Amino acid sequence: MGQKETAPLILFSWFLLAPYVATQRSSYIIHMDKSYMPKAFSSHHHWYSRTLDSVKSAHSGDNSGPKIVHTYDNAFHGFSAVLSIDELKALKNSHGFLSAHIDGPVTPDTTHTYEFLSLNTASGIWPASQYGKDVIIGVVDSGIWPESASFRDDGMAEIPARWRGECQIGQEFNSSRCNKKLIGARYFNKGVIAANPDVNISMNSARDTSGHGTHVASIAAGNYVEGVSFFGYAPGTARGVAPRAHLAAYKVLWDEGSYESDALAGIDQAVADGVDILSISLSYRTIDLYENPIAIAAFGAMEKGILVSVSAGNRGPDFGTLLEGIPWAIISASGTVDRWFAGILTLGNGLKITGWTTFPARATVRNLPLTYNETLSACNSTELLADAPDGIIICNQTFETAEFSDQIRFVAESNVAAAIYISEDTSILRFTDFPHPGVVITPKEAETVIKYVSKSSAPTASISFQQTIIGTDPRPAPAVSASSSRGPARSYPGVLKPDIMAPGVLILAAYNPEVPVTTIGRNIQLSSDYNLESGTSMACPHTSGIAALLKAAHPEWSPAAIRSAMMTTASTLDNTKKPIKDMGNEYRTATSLGMGAGQVDPNRALNPGLVYDATAHDYVNLICALNYTREQTQSIIRSRYKCLNPSLDLNYPAFVALYDPLEKKTTLTQKYQRTVTNVGDGAATYRVKVQNPKDSTITVSPQTLIFKKKNEKQTYSLTIRYKTYKEYVINDGSVTWVEDGGKLTVRSPIVVTPASPS
Amino acid sequence: MGQKETAPLILFSWFLLAPYVATQRSSYIIHMDKSYMPKAFSSHHHWYSRTLDSVKSAHSGDNSGPKIVHTYDNAFHGFSAVLSIDELKALKNSHGFLSAHIDGPVTPDTTHTYEFLSLNTASGIWPASQYGKDVIIGVVDSGIWPESASFRDDGMAEIPARWRGECQIGQEFNSSRCNKKLIGARYFNKGVIAANPDVNISMNSARDTSGHGTHVASIAAGNYVEGVSFFGYAPGTARGVAPRAHLAAYKVLWDEGSYESDALAGIDQAVADGVDILSISLSYRTIDLYENPIAIAAFGAMEKGILVSVSAGNRGPDFGTLLEGIPWAIISASGTVDRWFAGILTLGNGLKITGWTTFPARATVRNLPLTYNETLSACNSTELLADAPDGIIICNQTFETAEFSDQIRFVAESNVAAAIYISEDTSILRFTDFPHPGVVITPKEAETVIKYVSKSSAPTASISFQQTIIGTDPRPAPAVSASSSRGPARSYPGVLKPDIMAPGVLILAAYNPEVPVTTIGRNIQLSSDYNLESGTSMACPHTSGIAALLKAAHPEWSPAAIRSAMMTTASTLDNTKKPIKDMGNEYRTATSLGMGAGQVDPNRALNPGLVYDATAHDYVNLICALNYTREQTQSIIRSRYKCLNPSLDLNYPAFVALYDPLEKKTTLTQKYQRTVTNVGDGAATYRVKVQNPKDSTITVSPQTLIFKKKNEKQTYSLTIRYKTYKEYVINDGSVTWVEDGGKLTVRSPIVVTPASPS
Repeated sequence: MGQKETAPLILFSWFLLAPYVATQRSSYIIHMDKSYMPKAFSSHHHWYSRTLDSVKSAHSGDNSGPKIVHTYDNAFHGFSAVLSIDELKALKNSHGFLSAHIDGPVTPDTTHTYEFLSLNTASGIWPASQYGKDVIIGVVDSGIWPESASFRDDGMAEIPARWRGECQIGQEFNSSRCNKKLIGARYFNKGVIAANPDVNISMNSARDTSGHGTHVASIAAGNYVEGVSFFGYAPGTARGVAPRAHLAAYKVLWDEGSYESDALAGIDQAVADGVDILSISLSYRTIDLYENPIAIAAFGAMEKGILVSVSAGNRGPDFGTLLEGIPWAIISASGTVDRWFAGILTLGNGLKITGWTTFPARATVRNLPLTYNETLSACNSTELLADAPDGIIICNQTFETAEFSDQIRFVAESNVAAAIYISEDTSILRFTDFPHPGVVITPKEAETVIKYVSKSSAPTASISFQQTIIGTDPRPAPAVSASSSRGPARSYPGVLKPDIMAPGVLILAAYNPEVPVTTIGRNIQLSSDYNLESGTSMACPHTSGIAALLKAAHPEWSPAAIRSAMMTTASTLDNTKKPIKDMGNEYRTATSLGMGAGQVDPNRALNPGLVYDATAHDYVNLICALNYTREQTQSIIRSRYKCLNPSLDLNYPAFVALYDPLEKKTTLTQKYQRTVTNVGDGAATYRVKVQNPKDSTITVSPQTLIFKKKNEKQTYSLTIRYKTYKEYVINDGSVTWVEDGGKLTVRSPIVVTPASPS
Repeated sequence: MGQKETAPLILFSWFLLAPYVATQRSSYIIHMDKSYMPKAFSSHHHWYSRTLDSVKSAHSGDNSGPKIVHTYDNAFHGFSAVLSIDELKALKNSHGFLSAHIDGPVTPDTTHTYEFLSLNTASGIWPASQYGKDVIIGVVDSGIWPESASFRDDGMAEIPARWRGECQIGQEFNSSRCNKKLIGARYFNKGVIAANPDVNISMNSARDTSGHGTHVASIAAGNYVEGVSFFGYAPGTARGVAPRAHLAAYKVLWDEGSYESDALAGIDQAVADGVDILSISLSYRTIDLYENPIAIAAFGAMEKGILVSVSAGNRGPDFGTLLEGIPWAIISASGTVDRWFAGILTLGNGLKITGWTTFPARATVRNLPLTYNETLSACNSTELLADAPDGIIICNQTFETAEFSDQIRFVAESNVAAAIYISEDTSILRFTDFPHPGVVITPKEAETVIKYVSKSSAPTASISFQQTIIGTDPRPAPAVSASSSRGPARSYPGVLKPDIMAPGVLILAAYNPEVPVTTIGRNIQLSSDYNLESGTSMACPHTSGIAALLKAAHPEWSPAAIRSAMMTTASTLDNTKKPIKDMGNEYRTATSLGMGAGQVDPNRALNPGLVYDATAHDYVNLICALNYTREQTQSIIRSRYKCLNPSLDLNYPAFVALYDPLEKKTTLTQKYQRTVTNVGDGAATYRVKVQNPKDSTITVSPQTLIFKKKNEKQTYSLTIRYKTYKEYVINDGSVTWVEDGGKLTVRSPIVVTPASPS
């Protein structure tokens, strides 16, 4: 309801401090080195239990000892448990202990997009991938509303034989809720209960009580559903990006609270169940990769060939607001869509103005008197508007969402039939709570309207609602959403994050049909089977769905190859063929710290020419170079890997050159080495094309890469020589390998940036 | 908007008297005997002009002489003109003058129904008639909204070559508005302009500014349109009764007024254009057949083989409220449908109650506190409800629509989230203006709810909206609508009218998308592409559509044969297999004066076995027996016919025996003769079965009718011997011819009634 950005998670420092009271118990996530497990133990669970028993506090009675909440064995090794400070201290001395951190809360970030992404049935990735057939997407979120039409299984192939998941029985959820579309549903709330032992779980099953999990799942792989809309806006046939992929829902977000330990349990189980893609539209408070539950679990998933797709977060528009930049996941920024919800304002003189509205019904506002009156037009009190004539009133310009919300609320209390609001605040243009008939127009448009009113003896106007406009007006698309979190990543700024931009603004998808999504009139709450939501939460499942299509088309590709294909074929131009803009940065050209490599282009990603691949060993080398302790390192890579070749120079399809504005140096040189694999059908020659970042020079060697056959690898080096700045400036460039005599181009962004722009 | 019964036309006596002021001019309709036209005149128009010139008043100047408004030459002969009293007197002495009457105002009376009527694609009349292919239905009403999806022509056959109509160009209406579905559109407003010379016609074209004409046209022959509803109620695919029939719209109702002369012009033109069925959902003030424009025009249409289908009017529930009982038309009563619009009220204890609602959105009312409080529950003032808690309130029982409307209006002004209203007034259960979330339940159901509130410490309830319930609950269907006009017909009570009952309550059909049809919240008006309307206006086009199907299946049948087929196969039982009830008569068994022969059954009408046919000559004989003057008689039958065999015993598939409660006689005997035609495929024997009206005896001779071949005719006589009553009592019976060894039954209602029940 209201502005559809999920609020960013606020990091309260008390949260980290509060549990450190020795007499209280808190919930912790414990990473263990399983290689230490004595052979005597039949299972990791047994070992973890015994370990925990051994640390039982002398002060605790029999019934209040430490308790295991979850054990993890697929994405990583360890368990979560409720411990006192003393018990935690004792545990740290146990064999095999790697690290422990307090269990923290999780928050979710929050269709025509298939058209905007040029997905079509005639050619390209949809037919090539059979619409994602046989691929399984696991969605770790708030569960699922299984009765949604988006999860019907008509047209779906059989469940893949490799699937090991299940349809877990729970409250208002029996196993018949699953089918060939929704092939699995599980729920994880031991962490919530451990943190709040007296909690009453109001819906103890995978059933989605919010709508967020249902929304993201249907974006990724919803089936075709005709005749849907958001109260008449965005009408048409809904479908997911990969309409023939299977879905498995892992509910880890709860009305009663959401904890990392439960999210980890969900991811761990999804890996065990055999998902191909993990779609995680969640935010965590932990920045360090060795404590970040998704980063850790994603490493284990990646190792097993599972692509992990994560939302960038909604903390924009400032740079450095992207917290968890997981190098082995694909992180999605959120972009706008070429769709606009409008009310057409027609003045008595015939002039038409297309204003923003999502008034959720077909109001009849025809040829009514139009009033502009300096006093009334404040629209800021019930008393004032009691005198307003029954007709259309013009309200004065507002500069922020709250002001606009107040105006519309006061107008709704009055006898005014409709109102014209004035604002150029783009955040108002995502407002889906529009309870009284009206439109928002720009100050410039308002001048025209007010002039008409002042010159006409009996000014009138009409407004027609439920208009959906596709195209470049009023703003080209995509543009980077203001709220999308920007790099450099706080976790580690040396790998470009976000990776890619996908549609994430006012996305129509399935929802919990029982929760209010908007209001009408003074106080009437309305719900809908399909809801418009905005945020990187919505961008992430677009990327997940495209990854599923690529996986179906190229089953042999690694997660890194899939990500590379999306990145090197992404577009940096909008639908007016001009550079993509940044809505959060005064509509200037977007940087790669905002949009990553650019707007994802699934049809081009189907055939990228070259890919920058990376194995688990490559990520291990990066992690080993990050100056973590042994325990921190092993929290991620476990004992399976050794730090043999630590290197920050990951084989990534993007280049980040960091500088420190406070340093005295005036020039710096940074050298990178990359290996590209020819995934084209045969021999090919590529020549380099460079776009230098401002005040930098890029040299590439060799300048030509000759491939004799498919899957051949070639290595090149790239050097950035740049002037460092006294100011915090971000400059973008690129290196593109252009196929000789062909159409393929393999583009990597280059960004020269302070590690922490401010 | 609001209660969807079109208001009955009130007959103000001043209306008939006011024009008789010699110095003022008024508009008159003049019937002429065209056989008097001198051969010198090239056209009837020429003759009428010259006639009018000759009566020019000595007092009038050159520019203010009498003016012809319309001339008529198809359904009847004559013209309309603006005349002074003196001029009218002079005209009456002209050669060929038959009659004149003042031009009067016209008012309109007001889809799952195809399912309720058992129309289906597998068998019966739909496939047999090819869904009405090649039949043209003319709709004389408020025009048409040509852009409605119901008038798209996908799947339509070519326009029949015999069609002589046109797509008349006018305001916001060009000839491209017509297609293979809407094959003609014309408009007639010279009468409105003549009556109000300064009038400004706001939409000078066939475009429907109200929605009524669009609604009735789409009921008769709308194309298939998926995904329509009335704000979520009655959702599904809309379709007309004859989805493959063609439509021609004749606009005669205007925002600026509606006049008989224009309606006559529309009907006259429709006859000339070549329609097969005329659908007229209009009411006239004139009772006498010789002045009633539809009766007169319908005679001319019937002569040409056109079936004229007319609404009974909405003046019920009293007997004798059917004014224009045209013997040569088919007159439809309005019945209920087996569909109910509901909100499901769920109490905190799990009890579910299905209440009535048409709240036009999906309100979210879940687990809110439920309050019943003697004071608040009056729900009769804003001040009172200002103290009401935010939750669900129970409002006290109301006994009439206005009271309920007041309650919901006061609740909508308050902070109450939803309300439960209590009423058993069935008219509230047709209310489609339901601006605030709530349901109407019965007093008995309310007892249960109030008991729950009083016994629970924290009573709560939920309501789910937009529920559409099909079946026998809460009331069996069909039942005769309270407002449907009842016979005996004022025009002539000796022929049973209405003839038939068809669905006419809460019918979903296409509408003008720009006019408000309901409200939400305090004052927000909403419109819809499809609207729910009630009245005989809606029953009439159902009958017209069925007539079109019969015409397509049996092109050789006369209008009387088509009517007979519908009447003798109609059902007198509802969907619980009990006699159809009368909603306007305390839910007692309906009489044939309310429902005619019964509820139309189109599949049975396809194969009626026997028909009671009638030719123009038969109607002439009836008219000649009605004690009209020569001029009155000729207004209807024109000079073409002579009164050779006057007889009140029309060959009709129904029997009316009239008695006078004031007469001294205690027994009466009335004898009838009927001829039935075997329209079955070959030889057949029928035996009579009689149901005697109370205190009457029916004898039939012969008791067996033996037909050797198709189209053979047999005659029988029927005698009613009845006791006359001191009281006004109506007793029904029937005579049914039952096929020997077959399934066919040919039923005719018999009614013994005072001519004017009171």
